[in-house]
Amino acid sequence: MKKEDCIFCKIANGEIPSATLYEDENFRVILDLGPASKGHALILPKEHSANLYELPDETAAKALILAKKIISRMTRALGCDGYNIVQNNGEAAGQTVHHFHMHLIPRYQGDQVGLGWQVGELTDADKNEILEKFQSTED
Amino acid sequence: MKKEDCIFCKIANGEIPSATLYEDENFRVILDLGPASKGHALILPKEHSANLYELPDETAAKALILAKKIISRMTRALGCDGYNIVQNNGEAAGQTVHHFHMHLIPRYQGDQVGLGWQVGELTDADKNEILEKFQSTED
Repeated sequence: MKKEDCIFCKIANGEIPSATLYEDENFRVILDLGPASKGHALILPKEHSANLYELPDETAAKALILAKKIISRMTRALGCDGYNIVQNNGEAAGQTVHHFHMHLIPRYQGDQVGLGWQVGELTDADKNEILEKFQSTED
Repeated sequence: MKKEDCIFCKIANGEIPSATLYEDENFRVILDLGPASKGHALILPKEHSANLYELPDETAAKALILAKKIISRMTRALGCDGYNIVQNNGEAAGQTVHHFHMHLIPRYQGDQVGLGWQVGELTDADKNEILEKFQSTED
């Protein structure tokens, strides 16, 4: 189902033009207009889901296989040295368009894209608390 | 198949103990020892693949469904406000252990985890070059 006023619904379904790398029944893959690096692409399902929490399992199953296919072909096309797959859920996580999407970000040796994080420490107290809370939460 | 001397093979298959959130026939989900935020977990397939390029499609299909399941339950367990899914391929992309894994990073409003990138511009020249190179590369 499409959602009114969702820009990624309109792009995925071809109502707004985009630099399309790939399209099939379920997905459109486009070049990001604000790329982190040369070749940065987005996988957009044609059906609307706000995020991974809402994504139907059958779409999730296809999405990572499609990511593999696109990055394999793009790696040969562009000669990049690696890839980050980034998928953000919620504004606190930097999601700005609330239609599920996966960022496919080519990486080149010595580029300045970053995308790392500060490595913390898993204390015993945190570990025990998290395991206990997780195990006591139903699926 | 396991790979000798791969630490994530040993952890995934239970030869090295870990803070295990979840385990099934194909995967183990553990808490990261160097968390970006409280609850940072890793999805590890039990079979060895160096990265997404090498991951069998049937494992890829299950991995994102599992990510959805774990983050949904963790969000309720920890009360976090969002999630980043990050999957790095190749040293240029920050991959340090060459056994496919997905980072599930809980996000909390106002945290300092970062994980954004500098937004560039998709020029017409880049767009045309990338589309042409991609379309002329076989699957």
